[in-house]
Amino acid sequence: MSYWKYFKENDIIDVVAPGYPSQPQDVEGSRDFLLRWKLQPRIPKGLIKPHFLHANDDEQRFKFLKAAIEAKDSHVIWCLRGGYGSNRLVPMLAKLKKPKEPKLLIGLSDITSLHTFVTQEWGWTSLHAPILDRFGRNLIAPKHEKEMHDILFGQTNQIEFKKIKPLNEAARKVRNLKSKITGGNLTVLQSTMGTPWQIDTRKSLLFVEDIGERGYRIDRMFEQFRQAGLFKQCHGLILGDFVGGEEPATKKNNFKQVFKRWAQDLDIPMFQGLESGHAMIQRPVPFNTSCVLNVEAGKGHLIIQTGGRK
Amino acid sequence: MSYWKYFKENDIIDVVAPGYPSQPQDVEGSRDFLLRWKLQPRIPKGLIKPHFLHANDDEQRFKFLKAAIEAKDSHVIWCLRGGYGSNRLVPMLAKLKKPKEPKLLIGLSDITSLHTFVTQEWGWTSLHAPILDRFGRNLIAPKHEKEMHDILFGQTNQIEFKKIKPLNEAARKVRNLKSKITGGNLTVLQSTMGTPWQIDTRKSLLFVEDIGERGYRIDRMFEQFRQAGLFKQCHGLILGDFVGGEEPATKKNNFKQVFKRWAQDLDIPMFQGLESGHAMIQRPVPFNTSCVLNVEAGKGHLIIQTGGRK
Repeated sequence: MSYWKYFKENDIIDVVAPGYPSQPQDVEGSRDFLLRWKLQPRIPKGLIKPHFLHANDDEQRFKFLKAAIEAKDSHVIWCLRGGYGSNRLVPMLAKLKKPKEPKLLIGLSDITSLHTFVTQEWGWTSLHAPILDRFGRNLIAPKHEKEMHDILFGQTNQIEFKKIKPLNEAARKVRNLKSKITGGNLTVLQSTMGTPWQIDTRKSLLFVEDIGERGYRIDRMFEQFRQAGLFKQCHGLILGDFVGGEEPATKKNNFKQVFKRWAQDLDIPMFQGLESGHAMIQRPVPFNTSCVLNVEAGKGHLIIQTGGRK
Repeated sequence: MSYWKYFKENDIIDVVAPGYPSQPQDVEGSRDFLLRWKLQPRIPKGLIKPHFLHANDDEQRFKFLKAAIEAKDSHVIWCLRGGYGSNRLVPMLAKLKKPKEPKLLIGLSDITSLHTFVTQEWGWTSLHAPILDRFGRNLIAPKHEKEMHDILFGQTNQIEFKKIKPLNEAARKVRNLKSKITGGNLTVLQSTMGTPWQIDTRKSLLFVEDIGERGYRIDRMFEQFRQAGLFKQCHGLILGDFVGGEEPATKKNNFKQVFKRWAQDLDIPMFQGLESGHAMIQRPVPFNTSCVLNVEAGKGHLIIQTGGRK
């Protein structure tokens, strides 16, 4: 297991924008937020340029990401925003030599492409956690800002999830399951399928979340994962938040029925209740660190190591 | 190349519903349509039952499909509707022995899952063409109903597409390109990625169409295909109709820019203008038969063999 370095005051934080652009005021808000934490934001000039789809063209987005990865004076890459664009950078990343020192990558949603790459190809641990401009826009409640601060500055070395709900018999039987978490945004994970960077779920708990995907689309992705063998040798499936995705006819989503069928059909444990994804509360989920899952009296309890050290 | 048998009067047409349910009146309309063509519709009792996601549960949908595949007195399987559900049947199909006699599978959209399976696994030729209940709902113009009739009853053995537009330099150079067509609905093709039934584009022209997918999602799927090597050894990419997919901010889609970038980036020929997909006009596209593509004076001309014979 690789470790990332706990934050210290005056640390440089490399800010990148591999997906959609952030608005100028949100970039400034992000800068102010990092300064408030007594960190040195490094937000390169020209990071965001007008583009029909991304925060900048592929070459520029990659140039800034590469510089952040290779900078010798920083240990952190915090993504400004999700959106779409990171997966286009993966073939370019794959041409880089594996860095000597691991860094901490922070982000979610579109950033799932990068998490999958750095954990699988470079063996990094990483942090599925709010994108920087969410802090910059003051969308994080003080309690959760504190949790994030405690994790990053090393006030704690683990994160507890106490609201994990077992959805099938295999899940209700789980005792002291030692594993690691992989996953992220379901739709972004789907876009790794069949590529050299396909999500590897072996000996892992697969965590997925999504926004705006209807039940049948979630079902289709799960079916694809099943056909591709992703639920074999996988320790379990954990649902994060699924938001949006209403059926046009009923204005309600049909997730409950979709998940219920999967809980019945899968022979691996299936859970829900990881407070992470696109909902209001977006708790940090460390990827590729050790974790332990227990179920007692029908309640799941997950403890994940942050992967940080001094 | 396998052939399907031209229709004759009184032929039995096996009707299946592997995806979403059709409404009872549309089933009756489909029956009337087939009778009008002097065919014998075989629409099994109990084909459609209430289900939260599909026309029936997996076992029943598969049972009806299997019966249609194995029936010795029919040569045709016409799908009532698209929607979602066919891909869940593929692992069950894969357990069947390859039928001794090929049949003609007709449908599009969700039915792409089945086209991919029968062409790749069983070597069938098949017909990407309107689902049956579209005829049953009188949504097909007389001209296009006649085209379909001529094809199915053997009045012609080829289909011409004269509005094919080359999008890049490689496309403008195409002369007498002999190939075969594969593909279908882009999103459904995506769901084959990483599975044992992944779309095989080698030595083929890849045709794709979609409905309601925004530009960035189309871009993401193309990027996934590129990373998976689908554009290598592929003779070319042909866009069918892309409808819907408006950007929330502008209420317009950004397909033009997305396709323009791909046309610039791909080194295989890229075309658009195959009149097939989810638009009003849905011309039949034979899969896995021989075809010839020519470009002269900036205009593409595609002739596809229907794959039928007496």
